[in-house]
Amino acid sequence: MSTIYDPQNIFAKILRGELPSTKVFEDDVALAFMDIMPRGPGHTLVIPKVPARGFLDLPKDVVGPYMERVQTVAAAVKRGMGGEGLTVLQFNESCGGQVVFHLHFHLIPRWEGIALKAPGSAMGDRAEIEACAAKIRAGF
Amino acid sequence: MSTIYDPQNIFAKILRGELPSTKVFEDDVALAFMDIMPRGPGHTLVIPKVPARGFLDLPKDVVGPYMERVQTVAAAVKRGMGGEGLTVLQFNESCGGQVVFHLHFHLIPRWEGIALKAPGSAMGDRAEIEACAAKIRAGF
Repeated sequence: MSTIYDPQNIFAKILRGELPSTKVFEDDVALAFMDIMPRGPGHTLVIPKVPARGFLDLPKDVVGPYMERVQTVAAAVKRGMGGEGLTVLQFNESCGGQVVFHLHFHLIPRWEGIALKAPGSAMGDRAEIEACAAKIRAGF
Repeated sequence: MSTIYDPQNIFAKILRGELPSTKVFEDDVALAFMDIMPRGPGHTLVIPKVPARGFLDLPKDVVGPYMERVQTVAAAVKRGMGGEGLTVLQFNESCGGQVVFHLHFHLIPRWEGIALKAPGSAMGDRAEIEACAAKIRAGF
């Protein structure tokens, strides 16, 4: 399998400001923004600023700093959304579930009795996503 | 939701050597062993040695060292099993998919056209699991 990094992937464009996103966190290491096809309310993505196709491509010295940001954002997602639980997903290559080929961790708050929607099932409602983002920003 | 750590959970017992496991990696920070109800061939779990119920409970200074081990084991799982991709899952609280309440990352090698089995669908074949573990150990 190719592990070549394509700088034209949509998350690279988001990082360069060429495409919009609903951001909830950003520093020198990572960017977190709302998934536009959420599998549940508050579905958030965290990406590293360095180019990395998948988790195995992330330089070892960036793993710690990046995952600390993932944890920080995860806490804000759960707290801000009032989640009872949290599902963390990270997919590598198409057969592993990956759709955009820039490393990302999915953070999805969960509640008892509410199943995840299937991946890529529908575009989320823009106003609902913005409302979730506001809650998550308040969760830091 | 309770985030109390129960030292009688089965992964704590595995860490203390009170229950057996098929280990593929161990150092001072983390232990990796085969899931006994694999969702696919080579399904491996990586747990931290420190007591932590979920990802949000892991002390911040352990996040980096632990996730570096998760990456190291993930590479060996994919390489050793000859996976085309890799699915990484981490569940927090029952509603988030968690069954054992000691933090663990699931690492599942993937191949085109082969779906994941449902969680907890069946006990794996012991000999098959041992054969996968041997391949993964050779993948480091």
